[in-house]
Amino acid sequence: MIKVKVPATSANIGPGFDCLGVALNLYNTFYFEEIEKGLDIQGCCEEFSNENNLIYTSMKKCFERIGYNFKGIRIIIEDDIPLSRGLGSSAACIVGGVIGANEIAGKVLSKEEILKLAVEIEGHPDNVAPAIFGGMTVAIQDEDNIHYSKINVAKGLKFYAMIPDFTLSTKESRAVLPKEIPYKDGVFNVGRVALLITALTNGEFHLLKTSCDDKLHQIYRGKLIQDFDRIKEKCEEFGSLGMFLSGAGPTLMALDEDKNSKFYDDIKGFLKTLDNKWEVKPLDIDFSGAMVL
Amino acid sequence: MIKVKVPATSANIGPGFDCLGVALNLYNTFYFEEIEKGLDIQGCCEEFSNENNLIYTSMKKCFERIGYNFKGIRIIIEDDIPLSRGLGSSAACIVGGVIGANEIAGKVLSKEEILKLAVEIEGHPDNVAPAIFGGMTVAIQDEDNIHYSKINVAKGLKFYAMIPDFTLSTKESRAVLPKEIPYKDGVFNVGRVALLITALTNGEFHLLKTSCDDKLHQIYRGKLIQDFDRIKEKCEEFGSLGMFLSGAGPTLMALDEDKNSKFYDDIKGFLKTLDNKWEVKPLDIDFSGAMVL
Repeated sequence: MIKVKVPATSANIGPGFDCLGVALNLYNTFYFEEIEKGLDIQGCCEEFSNENNLIYTSMKKCFERIGYNFKGIRIIIEDDIPLSRGLGSSAACIVGGVIGANEIAGKVLSKEEILKLAVEIEGHPDNVAPAIFGGMTVAIQDEDNIHYSKINVAKGLKFYAMIPDFTLSTKESRAVLPKEIPYKDGVFNVGRVALLITALTNGEFHLLKTSCDDKLHQIYRGKLIQDFDRIKEKCEEFGSLGMFLSGAGPTLMALDEDKNSKFYDDIKGFLKTLDNKWEVKPLDIDFSGAMVL
Repeated sequence: MIKVKVPATSANIGPGFDCLGVALNLYNTFYFEEIEKGLDIQGCCEEFSNENNLIYTSMKKCFERIGYNFKGIRIIIEDDIPLSRGLGSSAACIVGGVIGANEIAGKVLSKEEILKLAVEIEGHPDNVAPAIFGGMTVAIQDEDNIHYSKINVAKGLKFYAMIPDFTLSTKESRAVLPKEIPYKDGVFNVGRVALLITALTNGEFHLLKTSCDDKLHQIYRGKLIQDFDRIKEKCEEFGSLGMFLSGAGPTLMALDEDKNSKFYDDIKGFLKTLDNKWEVKPLDIDFSGAMVL
């Protein structure tokens, strides 16, 4: 069987709406096998164990692109990435499916071609690029191409994913975004994302608080997440370097220096006092991206 | 006499409106001396040889901040930075004046304090920060503070300043900017500036063309500059890596690899065919910033 391991990803990252993404050391592992006929999906709930499964539909698109006639497919899923929480579970399924199919068909597509196809399926590159290449990436698309580049994030940064027990659909999260914005809000985000990237590259972590500020999505989406403002306030109080909404939410991501272990206990304790159940996962950057094992 | 050398700066840099700036190896040199009384300005036209001179008013603000009672001042100016062309001549005068006054008063202010004062005088930090610190910088200000960081631009990049014989006031240039913008234009610039910084840092110069694209100022200001679109087109045709409006214009800046010397001849030849007179100056990044010599 072909084994493909794909990292979770956190996209948008403060002011980096629709372009920044980072791969984290939380994984979905997929096993793929071509079988005589039919579709056999194991390891996921009944709701997704059918022909509409995103991993399977992504495989089919890859086989189609390559022109490979498959007989039947077996997929076994071991998923650690929580669903619909803003941690790139969809991107992981798409990337896993495309890579799995490409392996079955004889490694026809290059990494760049895998990226292109995965972006066509997902619709945007900000999760897919780090899921494939690992690390933190900038990825944008214009009419014809996907352009991406890796940010060499300085060592010593820890990501704390605060994951609630409720979900938020990307559709709902997109619906609250406006059609027009004040000019100064656009300028605000340009400055913040520029500072964020240089601060991360140079290891100037004291600049992260200011540079995680955003006026393009968090001010609109934060309202959809109960206790967003309180959690943000507490992260600051407990010494976090910065906090942002992960992807389209509802997961919130706090940044801290990895030597500050106190933050984890403090924020865990506080989240317990809230109405919703929140889990905290300390995570590191995954530098490898999707791997065939 | 105290001698202060301040580099020219190019701000805004494509999508980096109001935050990116780079110091270039074109300089104004100022000589300062405290004299018994009065004001003696040498080396500039009569129009600016008076108490409203920006270098002098900046010195006075610095003396005031420090609490230094000066008697009289002599300023001698050797200026190579063209005036009102979008190459940071105002920022150079302000930075020169503040540093000169600080030297006369006994080096009371730190570089950070010089930055703060210079930004108060100039109104924004995007030229002042690289003029003081050198290199390419991200600089933003919020209510209380100025935040800045240096971008470690990869080696091998040449800047070609295309300087016309007409001027464009910052006021006029600001007036054409809108109050509201489409949401997608804000998102566009965020992605482009993020890509620009990582591409410059990683030396991925093939990404510069896409990442110099901008929808916040060049689409509005370009119209104020005769032949903007034609020059842009020709820069591309001649193999330039990217082109942007320098500061508030009217200087246009083309980027190219420094090993491609053909671009200089090609663009110079083309600019000669235009109605206005354009000068081309090949420039390098100045990494030192303002220096007391």
